[in-house]
Amino acid sequence: MEAKRLLLLLLLCLYVVSSLVIASPQTCPADLSTKCADSGEWEGEFFPGIPTVKYEGPTSKNPLSFKWYNAQEEILGKKMKDWMRFSVAFWHTFRGSGADPFGSATKNWPWEDGTNSLAMAKRRMRANFEFIKKLGVDLWCFHDRDIAPDAETLEETNKNLDEVVALAKKLQGTKIHPLWGTAQLFLHPRYMHGAATSSEVGVYAYAAAQVKKAMEATHYLGGENYVFWGGREGYQTLLNTDMERELDHMARFLEAAVAYKKKIGFNGTLLIEPKPQEPTKHQYDWDAATSANFLRKYGLIDEFKLNIECNHATLSGHSCHHELETARISGLLGNIDANTGDPQVGWDTDQFLTDISEATMVMLSVVRNGGLAPGGFNFDAKLRRESTDVEDLFIAHISGMDTLARGLRNVAKLIEDGSLTDLVRKRYQSFDTEIGTKIEAGKADFEMLEKKAMEWGEPRVPSAKQELAEMIFQSAL
Amino acid sequence: MEAKRLLLLLLLCLYVVSSLVIASPQTCPADLSTKCADSGEWEGEFFPGIPTVKYEGPTSKNPLSFKWYNAQEEILGKKMKDWMRFSVAFWHTFRGSGADPFGSATKNWPWEDGTNSLAMAKRRMRANFEFIKKLGVDLWCFHDRDIAPDAETLEETNKNLDEVVALAKKLQGTKIHPLWGTAQLFLHPRYMHGAATSSEVGVYAYAAAQVKKAMEATHYLGGENYVFWGGREGYQTLLNTDMERELDHMARFLEAAVAYKKKIGFNGTLLIEPKPQEPTKHQYDWDAATSANFLRKYGLIDEFKLNIECNHATLSGHSCHHELETARISGLLGNIDANTGDPQVGWDTDQFLTDISEATMVMLSVVRNGGLAPGGFNFDAKLRRESTDVEDLFIAHISGMDTLARGLRNVAKLIEDGSLTDLVRKRYQSFDTEIGTKIEAGKADFEMLEKKAMEWGEPRVPSAKQELAEMIFQSAL
Amino acid sequence: MEAKRLLLLLLLCLYVVSSLVIASPQTCPADLSTKCADSGEWEGEFFPGIPTVKYEGPTSKNPLSFKWYNAQEEILGKKMKDWMRFSVAFWHTFRGSGADPFGSATKNWPWEDGTNSLAMAKRRMRANFEFIKKLGVDLWCFHDRDIAPDAETLEETNKNLDEVVALAKKLQGTKIHPLWGTAQLFLHPRYMHGAATSSEVGVYAYAAAQVKKAMEATHYLGGENYVFWGGREGYQTLLNTDMERELDHMARFLEAAVAYKKKIGFNGTLLIEPKPQEPTKHQYDWDAATSANFLRKYGLIDEFKLNIECNHATLSGHSCHHELETARISGLLGNIDANTGDPQVGWDTDQFLTDISEATMVMLSVVRNGGLAPGGFNFDAKLRRESTDVEDLFIAHISGMDTLARGLRNVAKLIEDGSLTDLVRKRYQSFDTEIGTKIEAGKADFEMLEKKAMEWGEPRVPSAKQELAEMIFQSAL
Amino acid sequence: MEAKRLLLLLLLCLYVVSSLVIASPQTCPADLSTKCADSGEWEGEFFPGIPTVKYEGPTSKNPLSFKWYNAQEEILGKKMKDWMRFSVAFWHTFRGSGADPFGSATKNWPWEDGTNSLAMAKRRMRANFEFIKKLGVDLWCFHDRDIAPDAETLEETNKNLDEVVALAKKLQGTKIHPLWGTAQLFLHPRYMHGAATSSEVGVYAYAAAQVKKAMEATHYLGGENYVFWGGREGYQTLLNTDMERELDHMARFLEAAVAYKKKIGFNGTLLIEPKPQEPTKHQYDWDAATSANFLRKYGLIDEFKLNIECNHATLSGHSCHHELETARISGLLGNIDANTGDPQVGWDTDQFLTDISEATMVMLSVVRNGGLAPGGFNFDAKLRRESTDVEDLFIAHISGMDTLARGLRNVAKLIEDGSLTDLVRKRYQSFDTEIGTKIEAGKADFEMLEKKAMEWGEPRVPSAKQELAEMIFQSAL
Repeated sequence: MEAKRLLLLLLLCLYVVSSLVIASPQTCPADLSTKCADSGEWEGEFFPGIPTVKYEGPTSKNPLSFKWYNAQEEILGKKMKDWMRFSVAFWHTFRGSGADPFGSATKNWPWEDGTNSLAMAKRRMRANFEFIKKLGVDLWCFHDRDIAPDAETLEETNKNLDEVVALAKKLQGTKIHPLWGTAQLFLHPRYMHGAATSSEVGVYAYAAAQVKKAMEATHYLGGENYVFWGGREGYQTLLNTDMERELDHMARFLEAAVAYKKKIGFNGTLLIEPKPQEPTKHQYDWDAATSANFLRKYGLIDEFKLNIECNHATLSGHSCHHELETARISGLLGNIDANTGDPQVGWDTDQFLTDISEATMVMLSVVRNGGLAPGGFNFDAKLRRESTDVEDLFIAHISGMDTLARGLRNVAKLIEDGSLTDLVRKRYQSFDTEIGTKIEAGKADFEMLEKKAMEWGEPRVPSAKQELAEMIFQSAL
Repeated sequence: MEAKRLLLLLLLCLYVVSSLVIASPQTCPADLSTKCADSGEWEGEFFPGIPTVKYEGPTSKNPLSFKWYNAQEEILGKKMKDWMRFSVAFWHTFRGSGADPFGSATKNWPWEDGTNSLAMAKRRMRANFEFIKKLGVDLWCFHDRDIAPDAETLEETNKNLDEVVALAKKLQGTKIHPLWGTAQLFLHPRYMHGAATSSEVGVYAYAAAQVKKAMEATHYLGGENYVFWGGREGYQTLLNTDMERELDHMARFLEAAVAYKKKIGFNGTLLIEPKPQEPTKHQYDWDAATSANFLRKYGLIDEFKLNIECNHATLSGHSCHHELETARISGLLGNIDANTGDPQVGWDTDQFLTDISEATMVMLSVVRNGGLAPGGFNFDAKLRRESTDVEDLFIAHISGMDTLARGLRNVAKLIEDGSLTDLVRKRYQSFDTEIGTKIEAGKADFEMLEKKAMEWGEPRVPSAKQELAEMIFQSAL
Repeated sequence: MEAKRLLLLLLLCLYVVSSLVIASPQTCPADLSTKCADSGEWEGEFFPGIPTVKYEGPTSKNPLSFKWYNAQEEILGKKMKDWMRFSVAFWHTFRGSGADPFGSATKNWPWEDGTNSLAMAKRRMRANFEFIKKLGVDLWCFHDRDIAPDAETLEETNKNLDEVVALAKKLQGTKIHPLWGTAQLFLHPRYMHGAATSSEVGVYAYAAAQVKKAMEATHYLGGENYVFWGGREGYQTLLNTDMERELDHMARFLEAAVAYKKKIGFNGTLLIEPKPQEPTKHQYDWDAATSANFLRKYGLIDEFKLNIECNHATLSGHSCHHELETARISGLLGNIDANTGDPQVGWDTDQFLTDISEATMVMLSVVRNGGLAPGGFNFDAKLRRESTDVEDLFIAHISGMDTLARGLRNVAKLIEDGSLTDLVRKRYQSFDTEIGTKIEAGKADFEMLEKKAMEWGEPRVPSAKQELAEMIFQSAL
Repeated sequence: MEAKRLLLLLLLCLYVVSSLVIASPQTCPADLSTKCADSGEWEGEFFPGIPTVKYEGPTSKNPLSFKWYNAQEEILGKKMKDWMRFSVAFWHTFRGSGADPFGSATKNWPWEDGTNSLAMAKRRMRANFEFIKKLGVDLWCFHDRDIAPDAETLEETNKNLDEVVALAKKLQGTKIHPLWGTAQLFLHPRYMHGAATSSEVGVYAYAAAQVKKAMEATHYLGGENYVFWGGREGYQTLLNTDMERELDHMARFLEAAVAYKKKIGFNGTLLIEPKPQEPTKHQYDWDAATSANFLRKYGLIDEFKLNIECNHATLSGHSCHHELETARISGLLGNIDANTGDPQVGWDTDQFLTDISEATMVMLSVVRNGGLAPGGFNFDAKLRRESTDVEDLFIAHISGMDTLARGLRNVAKLIEDGSLTDLVRKRYQSFDTEIGTKIEAGKADFEMLEKKAMEWGEPRVPSAKQELAEMIFQSAL
């Protein structure tokens, strides 16, 4: 057996692990008496007990209803659905196994047949669209390798992808399309030293080929954005790393991606997703500012925006709101990976956001940004390892959607009330003067300012009213 | 009493607190029988029991000797002193009181008379130069307000500064000069909302006037660099902050600083000192990449370099080595604030670096940078609150100097051995090929790379040899 | 001048710094035309524009009203005031200067005369009681040294304390008394190596004398508890520390405290307040479990309870809820220091808690504990350095009280709804069986269990329903 | 197919993933021309190019030699090997796959046949003993499930274990035996809610059966200790957790373990291994103090010691030295898991310790403890994911052993020099007095101490000499 086939076997097995085998009778609930000839042909319902989720308002006790998210309701001049642009992440929802560094898979979805076959990939895709429709959203996100299985050669792998993508195209219909696509450049051992920043030129080429194909697939499916998350673009120790050369390689890679995007006429936004660390000790796209610095240094700042993830923000020592604002004021806020972490935990937990206060701050940035389109909110969030019921998938998404919807409603209250905006505006009003205007126009030199300082004497410095700001903010929750 | 005078009184008192009063007889050890007419006239020895510190080699048990730092010894083609360019930080050494958020001052230096008078400022300056000479260095760093007292008006404060600076100029002689000067824009309550980023235009002007004067003083004293540490340039909460406007103000301020530098013919390097947080929740110069991003965004990247502090590095989630390398490969490594933090502590402890491994990594960056000149190593490090003997000031500096000197010696061993450099070079040799060269020249598009990837098949990915790299590294310690 | 007097001067000055002088006319608003003979005799209003704070309900926009805290309203069978037992912390409210490690004092209260005289201490005490009454609470907390000035000798210092305590007793009337008192054993330089754990026997004795007196004062004032926060009981480095001996000393000290409490007939609860670090690198009362371990080891577990502070909890890597529950289930939850930290900041920020979700979890523990009496909620929280208006003191306390009141109301909703309690109870119901009961009674040995395991085969493991639990929890907010 | 068989398949697959299949010819290097009938029968060399590792001294450049560890050399009155008692961890060394939360397996050991068969388990065991012998150690550690495969029923699984254990017994010979054994109670999905603290009684029983068997196996192999690491004994959220009930269950479980140990005449030490979090948000054995508190609360303190892991220590906010000292001074230091983490990383990296300073502090505790026997140093450390050469396994262990050996040599230097010990002793000498003795004997009440305090006046508080201590410490490195 050659290495290639072994790797294939390995990957196949890996997927088996994440999908727990279930015998055939259970896999065809639509017609339990019939044997399923090919698991790809599954035609029944994947979520038989779950109705299409409806808005029932805040007093509802039904876990499978929205209490705050009312898609068609207009808030601040836009429908809620247009503010939110919610997207289901294929990987967490359909490939999340519940495995962690100390434990094997726990999820046991009834539609999984225990293989990573092409047929299984297709069946899973059907489940995906049933899930999306029942949840009432119309966007989804994917990595190339989570929707279609690896094969022995790149050519065959691409063929697999083509087949699944063709099915997805059909299942999408006219209403659904990807918020974004991306290439999975971190799971496979070939990427252990990085993809664009691998020390091996062969890996760099392989990664380029993979991104090329993933971009084509995204384009074909009508995807609105394309994301780069450099899970292995970083280092474990500087002792064995030529960081300068690696960063140069990353720039060359992204330049080539921009060129290819233009060549194929893909008009979607390219997005960088910052993360400080994990799996590597240091990732080159550490946070929003670091990513922007990289883009500026290599002249790529006009070609990319950022995909901010809340859990990545907090791991980098910032609040999520900070990262969103940092991106926003540089015109770089392109998309949000809606999730949260545990404030006492030092790794990515990718939990569904359920904190109202956080959600309100997130929505403040979104509203200030005039919305996120063509980006949106992608639920890069996963069930806890111990949540093993099919309905948990729905409950988690509903909870996440309701929380952000509640955030939007709170922002509307804050804006209507107006006192927080006022408080901030007034703090800076001393700059809304002649001298302030001069300073802001870059026309105030040190000599002039020194003269003013001497003329004015000790400046008056008022209270920053933080506690009042917090009180006003909380009143809107 | 008006506010101005009150503030004056406040600051005066603050300094009293940090300097514990001692009666006159003790303050004039050179002639104990004579009464000191004016404490500024002190002519005796400040450190009577302390000899000039000499190199005695690694076997010496004398705490007041160098075991590894031998100033005139040549290492890697340069004298140790020229690699190191050690500088004494006036503030920690002569104004450090030992106070912390839960405790009042503990230092009780015999030369302090308990006031923050001009006379006391001068006497302290004499102590500074005796300290510098006994330690055998020829560089020092200062904040304007730590060398001369605040007065009621800016004019008078400037006059105080002029007087002390004139004395410093005299005491410097021909061999000593500042590594850098800076303005203290964080201690005074007027700066509580920031200096360049204050919400008050009057504070902005005041800060400009202060930087103008501090830059003049630095220039006059022959300072080789000028530093900006934005201790209050940041925010406590985004709820009451207009971050975009504040960052714009900061850019305007630095532009004006550049213009003024050129106007007065000051050729020293301007340095930004990144720090992630403390005292503010978020500081705008968070880390090296964030600072570089800011400089690039506002077109200031060619006018500034960075002053990297190790303790600030670790507070921002990076190793010190990472921050140094990040600065170095962008041509921004201008100076190092030599200190360290406690790895389990979440605030700035500004300890003297005594870790050999860390020191070796720091010196690796310095050697790769071809040295730091016109920058150097400034000991931005302070005695622990509980270290209250005068000799502790010497012991701490000697320990810090020896540690970095030991680091330099280790780097020489590593370079001589050559195997670590080799290991790194070989990791990337697949890029030293025709296709690698094409990629690095930006001439490899995705189509060509895809063809190559298919042609080559599954790439070979060798071990990263981290454990071997660590073994080699440790062997040099 | 001897050292003693110098220290006195130092401390006096330190207080000046934290209290910014204001001229006499402003200090006597009740009768501006009269000169104040003695600042202790102030008879006017300290907060002239501030009315007694009233409950106005959630729709009120008045910052100086309660929106959620309605003292006399009954919730879950008890008046809100009896659940909350709010207490004002004298030190943050009346001695907080706004100073931080990089900045001097910013607070400029109109009643301060710029001294730390006995007269000033008395005037401040009057302000305290006006504040307490206007806020509508009836408990307060104090450190000995923040209510009365240090003098040259312990005897005189005690006399100062006696005088202020006598005044406080008078001002308290029949309705107000201390939630707890404590001795300040961390500010003074004598305590730099610890108090009970100092390496100096003289300091140990001094600390004992101080606790003795503070306990007497607390007893005299009708205090219901006495707190030990060991701000300096810890180490900066293990290299110079005999941890074993220090811990033994701490135990001896607490034993003596217990003995003295009994001797004077003080029936209040003794409380240990855990904190992991800051000011020291490691504090011996790291967290609830560490403190309990210490108490158990030295046979003191029945003599003490714990005072849990939320910001200390998060600094130790735990949620506040975790620390409260850890204390509660061991019968050790005695009091809560109501505050919060910044989740991205590594030091104690002592902010007023405004997070609804956190407040609800805190109140869950309190309700499960059947309340906190004789403990309560002490506002160990301070204004931000930049909050400098007198009204900010009120706004901050109102916001903190309302937040916890909102938490209590949410808990009532949760309990009424019942589904969260149900979810938890059902998770463990397999232990409500014969074999479960046997296990819980300690009667199930490994052999019997092995037999059962073999008999039962692979156990069934249901979903933990975390997302559902979070959804239910949020619905109550 | 039933759930049981599916789980079996799952686990089998999981192991395949972690062991990359290689075709038969490579698996029998001793006789490449012969087909291997049964992989368990492998008789060749597993590490053909690797010689028995020898001590060659500090100047050797041979990565496969010891530079500092000289097993038979006597240091401080004991052979190095008796101080160190190094042990190889079977799981990291032979079951570590290189997988991480974002990446699949990378290790490709030539002896693995891609199955988790019993035959493969035996072959792996042979590799283990060849590794141990070539490394020159005589202790090893194991989890039950990493040495023998899971089967469909507990009975069959136990049979598998018996077979492998019998082989291990044979291969051990007279010189080798386990430092400790343990049961793996975290990998299998049945343990997702905990083992002893699972909400399911069936899981509790299963865990009991597993520990019973693992303890028997350990005893049979001559193991000197038995370890409990509660990887799933904790919670993900308190919202769905009855912490009190779970802790009670854990106590019952450990009581039963103690009883069973006595029943079978196993005299080895029972060890608790603290870890603060990961995989769970909170683990009940958070740190040394928390574990000790638990043991005391439930009356188990005399039955257990602690196994301190350095990486766990730092994750809990402590230095490793702190955790070791905390255990030591309570008589609880039983074993050390020798590894280290990355100071900027918030998860368990289990790296081999290569830091000299850390190693010296670790050895200081060990020497003060009079050694660790019957415990020792277990290398709970793993190769980086990117280290994929067989020789990396040796290099890593050699590096780890040399680092600790170097630490021991440094401690000998420190002890010989004596000045650090002196410095500490002198700091506390004021307690070596009559009054000090009284205090330490618990005979100094507050009244007597107050009298002394008044008599003595302001205590004298000398410098803590931290910088001097650090200088002395570094001189020994």
